[in-house]
This record gives sequence, C-alpha cells and structure tokens, in this order.
Amino acid sequence: MKINIAEAHHRINNIIIRTPLITDDYINNFLENTTFFKCENLQKIHAFKARGAANALSKLQKNLLEKGVATHSSGNHGQALAWAAKIFGTQAHVVMPMTAPKTKVDAVRFWGGEITFCEPTLQAREETLQQVVERTGAIFIPPYNHWDIIEGQGTCAFEILQEGFEPDFILAPVGGGGLLSGTALAAHQFSPKTKVIGCEPKNADDAYQSFHAGKLIPVGAANTIADGLRTSLGDITFDVIRKYVHDILTVTEEEVIDAWRWITFYLKLIIEPSCAVPVAALLKHKDKFKGKKVAVILTGGNVDAEKLRLILP
Amino acid sequence: MKINIAEAHHRINNIIIRTPLITDDYINNFLENTTFFKCENLQKIHAFKARGAANALSKLQKNLLEKGVATHSSGNHGQALAWAAKIFGTQAHVVMPMTAPKTKVDAVRFWGGEITFCEPTLQAREETLQQVVERTGAIFIPPYNHWDIIEGQGTCAFEILQEGFEPDFILAPVGGGGLLSGTALAAHQFSPKTKVIGCEPKNADDAYQSFHAGKLIPVGAANTIADGLRTSLGDITFDVIRKYVHDILTVTEEEVIDAWRWITFYLKLIIEPSCAVPVAALLKHKDKFKGKKVAVILTGGNVDAEKLRLILP
Repeated sequence: MKINIAEAHHRINNIIIRTPLITDDYINNFLENTTFFKCENLQKIHAFKARGAANALSKLQKNLLEKGVATHSSGNHGQALAWAAKIFGTQAHVVMPMTAPKTKVDAVRFWGGEITFCEPTLQAREETLQQVVERTGAIFIPPYNHWDIIEGQGTCAFEILQEGFEPDFILAPVGGGGLLSGTALAAHQFSPKTKVIGCEPKNADDAYQSFHAGKLIPVGAANTIADGLRTSLGDITFDVIRKYVHDILTVTEEEVIDAWRWITFYLKLIIEPSCAVPVAALLKHKDKFKGKKVAVILTGGNVDAEKLRLILP
Repeated sequence: MKINIAEAHHRINNIIIRTPLITDDYINNFLENTTFFKCENLQKIHAFKARGAANALSKLQKNLLEKGVATHSSGNHGQALAWAAKIFGTQAHVVMPMTAPKTKVDAVRFWGGEITFCEPTLQAREETLQQVVERTGAIFIPPYNHWDIIEGQGTCAFEILQEGFEPDFILAPVGGGGLLSGTALAAHQFSPKTKVIGCEPKNADDAYQSFHAGKLIPVGAANTIADGLRTSLGDITFDVIRKYVHDILTVTEEEVIDAWRWITFYLKLIIEPSCAVPVAALLKHKDKFKGKKVAVILTGGNVDAEKLRLILP
C-alpha cells in the first residue's frame, strides 16, 4: 500500500480536531440498530477536507512548502488548503469561480488565502490555476485524486475504528472519492471485517456506474442538492474504490432532503446536504442494516443558511 | 455544603453523555478571546436537564423509587424525568398543559412517560400534579428548586472544569436557576478563580432584579423567545445564586435572535434560543471578556423546526 494512515494521523493529530462520534436513542430505536455519527461538521473549517490538506502539507519538503500551495475550488477544499497553509506558515493560492458564494470566498480570505477569480467553467479553472502556478511557483494540491489527500481523509475512519465499537459498516458519501477511498483503506487495514459503503445521489451516480461497469465512467454536469458530490471519481480513487469498497448505494434528491431534515432535527446538527446522502441510504435500506453496528461520516457543515428553508416544515 | 457534585457525577457518569466542549477559530478571532462551548444539545434528551433528573433518581431509596416519580412540565424537565425513570426502571407521571407542542408530548411518550393533560395555567398544573401524586403515590421531582437537581446540573460545569483549560468565566443562562446554582457551586469548589455569570432575557429578568435587590422578586408572565427561561428563581436557587454567582447580565430579544443565528451557523449546531442568551451577553460585553478564557453552556437543542425561520436570511 502506498499510504500509511496511522502515521498520517500521528502527523496531523495536533492540528485537526478529534471530532465527536455521537449516537442517539431515538434514531437507534427507529433504525433498529446502533448507528454512530462522526461529526466532521465540527472539524476545522467545518469539513473533513481539513484532514487531507493538512496531511498533504505535512509531507511537503520545506523548500517546496515555501513556494506556496495552489488549487482551484468552489467549495471546502479551497478553505481547507488556505487553513492548512496558514498553519504550516506558507501561502495558499485559490482559484475560485466568480460565481462562488460569498461565504466561501470570505472563508478562504479569513485564512489568508489569495484568491484569483475566473469564469465558472472547469476549463477556465484549470487554465487559471496553471497561470497561478507558473507565476508563483506554488505546488498544486489537488482536491481528491492524490495519495496524500486520500491518506489524510483516511484518518477520519481511523479515529472511528479507534473508538472500539467495531462497526459492521461505515457509510460515507462519494464525490471525487478521496474520503471514500481513504475510509476503505483504513477499514481494510485496521478492521477488515468492517464493510465500507459509498453513498451517492442518483443524479451524480458516476461512482455507482463505474463500480458496476468496472471502468471509469465520469458524469457530465450533475444536478444534485448535494453540492459536495457533483464531481466524478479520479483514476486513483476509482482504483481504490473498485478494490476495497463493498458496495455503492444511490438515493434520490427527495430522499436526500428527507434524510437531511431528519438528521438535522434529531441529531441537533447543522450539516451540508452531502452528509444526508449516507443517512438517506441508511433509511432506504433499513433492513440491510437492522441489528448492525453502523458508522456514518457526516462530512461537513458548510451550508448557506437560506438553503435550510428546504428542510423546514 | 449540602451537595457533592463529584459524587453525583460519579453516580450518573455511565448514564449521561460526556458532551463535547468545542471551540471555533472564527468565533475566537471575532471575540478576541478563547471561548469553549459545552454542547448539552448533544446530551441525552438533548438538554442538560437529563443530569438533574438522573441524579435525583439515583438518590431515591429503592422503596420510594418503586412508587414512580411525577412532575409537571411543558418542556425539557418532563422529558428528562421520563427518560431517567425508564433508565431506573420506574414509572414517570408527567402533567402537561394541553397546549404543549406535539414534539414535547411525543418525546415524553417515547420514554414511556404517562401523561396527564391539564389547563395551561400554573394553578391547574399544580392541582393536577397533586391529584396524580395522591392517586399513584409517585414522588414529586421538581424541575429546579431542589438540592438533588442543583447537584445534578452542577455536573455539567464539573466536566468543563475537568478539561484543564481553567476558564476565567463560565456563562450559563438562568431561568429557574437550577443550572446556574449548580454551576456556581461547582466552580466554587473546583475552580474558585472561575467567575460564574448568569445570563437572562431582559423580558424575564427576575434573577437580575432579585440579585440586585437582595431579595426574591418573581416576574409574572414573561414574554421571551427563550422559552426555557420564562420561569422565576426558587428560594433555594436564589440563595445559592446570591452567594456564589459573580454577576447577572441581561440581553434584549433582538440580541438573543442575532446571537442564536450567529452561533447556529458558525458552530454548526441546532440549539434552543435559551442557549443564545449567554452568547448574546458575550457579544454585547465583548470588552469585558477580551483576552479571557470563557466557557459557555449551550443548554439544549429542543426547538421546533419552524422557529428556525426566525434566524434564516
């Protein structure tokens, strides 16, 4: 294996938050099982992405780190990189589409990230990033298709497995696949009996399709409320997922919204809609998980306030 | 002292949840201090009231416990008592006003509590409770003006003080005063340098008035969004508060709503508006707490979903 998740955890342990793993009597009673929720919405920058960014920077040699780091992002990875750069004493350059929500822009700025705006297309983002890298010499840190990122995201499941409750299943959402592949590798190494299941919106089901076809099938522009999961797998994450993930389950937009409402008001947490995807799978396939020990990764809490209207009565 | 909070904690430790104590970089940066939040919204029944109820029942002799327990409540104490009764293998009888929200009624029923409805007046509640107690022989467990309840609520600050960050201040909301007096006694015993401050809506400022007058001044029908804080102090809680609390700060309804919004979206937690009262005091008196170490008790998360409209943009 190209990664060492235990060592990664040891390296970033003092920087990230060991997020709570919580459970709820009402939820367990309803699901007829024991489900624990890993609260990455309470992580640094309120998303698991802090783990991967911290790990990637912790592995950069000093002379490379000094050049600064760069990425393109409209979401949590940009924030995570800006945060990690500040912690490691270097400069983050983040290319953001000019349509990015103000809250996300402000968050990158709060951590001292230097923003370059571009047109809201993948081509513009990649070209602008290329220019920034050429101009500054900064090191590109990709959001998911990179071993250091996968290794960092794997520390989340590593913490779950250290709690000693030995889950039968870990459910994680899948977008680019960094979290899912890190989770699958952590389980493979530290709790082989634990089955890792990826959960995906039907409207962005490239992982489901690729998993079953045995080859990478990217989706086009995905239209899902779970905005963190619109991206497609990369070649590295797909390869890990194909080998180490037990199954991929998909859910509809309506199921995601119902699960989002359910978890917000029973668990008392503000979560991103992406977090609701594995919860929706848990509710939809209740029989599959009956009597089992399940861990669900709640990936983050960065949701625009007005979107909460969708889950109010 | 009539109470032993360390022993109470030892007794109920395996029943309650040791709730997370969390902090946030953005919040600390804004407040120019270090503030930790004790997340009792993640407690059993999603409110600190579980502590007092568990402690009261843990101290009942077996022959009394068998008779069942009773209270009147439109809020979290009824749920807490029903939950604790189930844990201790006895029956809870809860008198509730017929106007109580369905969610609260359902929660008491979920824990096996037997509900008797009454007219929504204090007189009707007390008379109905009296009838229930006479009929069943159940032991009345009051919501706050009782040493076992105060002792149980004190375990929340006890846990904060065990974390080793030695707060200069602990801020707690004050309604009937059970939490505030338990908190003050915990600080007095385990961290005498820590000042405990009660925080109260201006619209229900009996504790503020009583504290400054040196005598108990109950308020009439209090009109505040912080529904957990509408009650007035009792003689026991007032006596403790007068002796051991450093100060009482009051805030307006508008300040409460602003703080509620602020904490919900920066901390990523669903909290009751009552929790926002100490946060509002913290924001209002920023200079007083600048550079200090502050702990805020977030008392619970049982808020009706539709009320969240108040804090959406």
